[in-house]
Amino acid sequence: MIFDANLSQKAAENLKRLRAKKPLIHNITNFVVMNYNANVLLAIGASPVMAHAMEEVEEMVSLSNALVLNIGTLEQEWVSSMIKAGKRANKLDIPVILDPVGSGATAFRTGSAKRLINDISIKVIRGNASEILSLAGNRSETKGVETRHSVDDAYNTALSLSKELGTTLVITGKVDLITDGDRILRVYNGHELMGYVTGTGCAATAVIGAFLAVDNDPVSASATALAYFGLSGEFGAKKASAPGSFMTASIDALYEIDELALARGAKIQS
Amino acid sequence: MIFDANLSQKAAENLKRLRAKKPLIHNITNFVVMNYNANVLLAIGASPVMAHAMEEVEEMVSLSNALVLNIGTLEQEWVSSMIKAGKRANKLDIPVILDPVGSGATAFRTGSAKRLINDISIKVIRGNASEILSLAGNRSETKGVETRHSVDDAYNTALSLSKELGTTLVITGKVDLITDGDRILRVYNGHELMGYVTGTGCAATAVIGAFLAVDNDPVSASATALAYFGLSGEFGAKKASAPGSFMTASIDALYEIDELALARGAKIQS
Amino acid sequence: MIFDANLSQKAAENLKRLRAKKPLIHNITNFVVMNYNANVLLAIGASPVMAHAMEEVEEMVSLSNALVLNIGTLEQEWVSSMIKAGKRANKLDIPVILDPVGSGATAFRTGSAKRLINDISIKVIRGNASEILSLAGNRSETKGVETRHSVDDAYNTALSLSKELGTTLVITGKVDLITDGDRILRVYNGHELMGYVTGTGCAATAVIGAFLAVDNDPVSASATALAYFGLSGEFGAKKASAPGSFMTASIDALYEIDELALARGAKIQS
Repeated sequence: MIFDANLSQKAAENLKRLRAKKPLIHNITNFVVMNYNANVLLAIGASPVMAHAMEEVEEMVSLSNALVLNIGTLEQEWVSSMIKAGKRANKLDIPVILDPVGSGATAFRTGSAKRLINDISIKVIRGNASEILSLAGNRSETKGVETRHSVDDAYNTALSLSKELGTTLVITGKVDLITDGDRILRVYNGHELMGYVTGTGCAATAVIGAFLAVDNDPVSASATALAYFGLSGEFGAKKASAPGSFMTASIDALYEIDELALARGAKIQS
Repeated sequence: MIFDANLSQKAAENLKRLRAKKPLIHNITNFVVMNYNANVLLAIGASPVMAHAMEEVEEMVSLSNALVLNIGTLEQEWVSSMIKAGKRANKLDIPVILDPVGSGATAFRTGSAKRLINDISIKVIRGNASEILSLAGNRSETKGVETRHSVDDAYNTALSLSKELGTTLVITGKVDLITDGDRILRVYNGHELMGYVTGTGCAATAVIGAFLAVDNDPVSASATALAYFGLSGEFGAKKASAPGSFMTASIDALYEIDELALARGAKIQS
Repeated sequence: MIFDANLSQKAAENLKRLRAKKPLIHNITNFVVMNYNANVLLAIGASPVMAHAMEEVEEMVSLSNALVLNIGTLEQEWVSSMIKAGKRANKLDIPVILDPVGSGATAFRTGSAKRLINDISIKVIRGNASEILSLAGNRSETKGVETRHSVDDAYNTALSLSKELGTTLVITGKVDLITDGDRILRVYNGHELMGYVTGTGCAATAVIGAFLAVDNDPVSASATALAYFGLSGEFGAKKASAPGSFMTASIDALYEIDELALARGAKIQS
């Protein structure tokens, strides 16, 4: 398989910019992953903040370089906060990324995801195939936060939905698919042990958020972020063969991977 | 000490079934352990979902194979969600397990635990001796989430309370006691370092929840789950002698223990 | 540099008392650090409890030996619970410590921190320089939960503010500053990798809380707690060079450091 050398180089550049800028990433996310995702953002060189109160989300997002929304343990009030923060982010041209965790599993999740997409201008939506398909109104039985659809199932829907919404869609799975309805990129980095650590999908979303803070093109930002995050899993799996030590080793890898390692290891296909 | 070979075999069978079925476990649990317990459930081969919004708990539990309720950082609204989810689970014959964290420490906790027991049909209640005694109306000063009562203190109360409530009671401690008011099992697996990792009791509850999804008998499901979870602590302690690395090694062990290792290592006394 | 041998000795004594007493530490803290801070408190030999419901905070704090308040992911209702718990703690002479996470970043945070300080008698406030300066009404642009001010910037403000509030102030940074407006101590323990693990500041606050349960002098309790916590980072960095494994090794170190190691390693300047 031949990978895109320009995008490998772009990945390294984005990582360099990220570590120079240390962007502040505002997360309104779920309880399960808050600690892990904050640690991931610190390890890559970004600065995380978690804040969800209606009273402060507008002020907090205005200090930030990207806004990450994640409905993993949603409540009605949190959705309202997300919309408030998202609208302010839109006004200030701060990129917004959405992780529609479990969309398709319950009407409340699917409805909340659609409401966020409707009310906010979102640069990137990242989910598994079932979650993304659910946004198109296709029937999809999400099994909890896991997927029953392959990335290929979602291929055609993703292309048309991306055009319809004017949003870059990122479907992660064995191979990741990134499309803005026009361009299509695939990322082959990753390791199956990532599926045994809770919140790796959410963490991938947060890393894309950080890359959006240094790369205006949502397609290349997403693909390079996923190559980097997937590579950290590959490096982690060299040191660990079970989920506990793998999680630790993968966070270490995010910190240790430098531009050269990323340029060499990125597997992005255009 | 002689252990029950049939129950060792049963433990191995339950583990095999669990990994084949990959049951979805719906958790309405506390903020402290959400990440850790999700990782434990993934490591054993189950699929966790955390969801607590009134708008979606009925729909979410109906997709699930077991419901785990935990009052560790309870609020009034969360208790209402637990009852809503629990009633739906009862209707659909989905097993419910309750962890009455800190019951006995405050009137709000004791009252909430009793309300849950009253309103929902619960298959298994797991707590330490103080928590279980508090459900019987006995006076018990819980020191936070720790216990001042030994498992033996709770022996007689557990037997009569179990009959009264028609629920299997699981009292964990140095030795674990499982009873449905008729049968009594004891589990001798475990390691003292588990007391230095927050949420190991809650994780034990979640693992029992997963075993209930593959074993209809709450007594054998609980005992085999505790043998497995305790064994992971024993294996973890072979690799680590302090809490941070012990937690990591124990999650690894949950993933690595296979049927043979569990059949050999289980220490269940009938 | 010469360090205070009496305070090194005091640190060892406090650690000894802590492990003998196993104080119950009631935390009303943020979602991001709940698990990590509970594990830190267990590792040092304390007993953590997290409880925030209005219905139970008074009862819970009355069982406790110290109350830790942290506004990292604050909501209006949580602030009300903090005040309720704090007032009861004041009545019972249970020490209260505040971590004003992100104060200065948003009006809601600064206002909430000031409200807590106004309504409750607080023994110790620990923050970074920006957070502490924000409490004095000085203008401070907090970048998320990071600081743009050095400890030295905050030196003069801290002295006068401490007198004004009648509270011991602790400003952590490369060097930590502790003052009650009269005495000034500096702590030189710590490692830069601590900045790559989310919630180390919050954990330092929790450890001070635990030391307040065994040392009535807030200045020496804070300094010795910070020396211990900083030393755990130094020990962690001997075993690990990246954030994931460093966090694990640092928790291990908190558990493993004994009185002798602390007496030898503490770097407190009076």
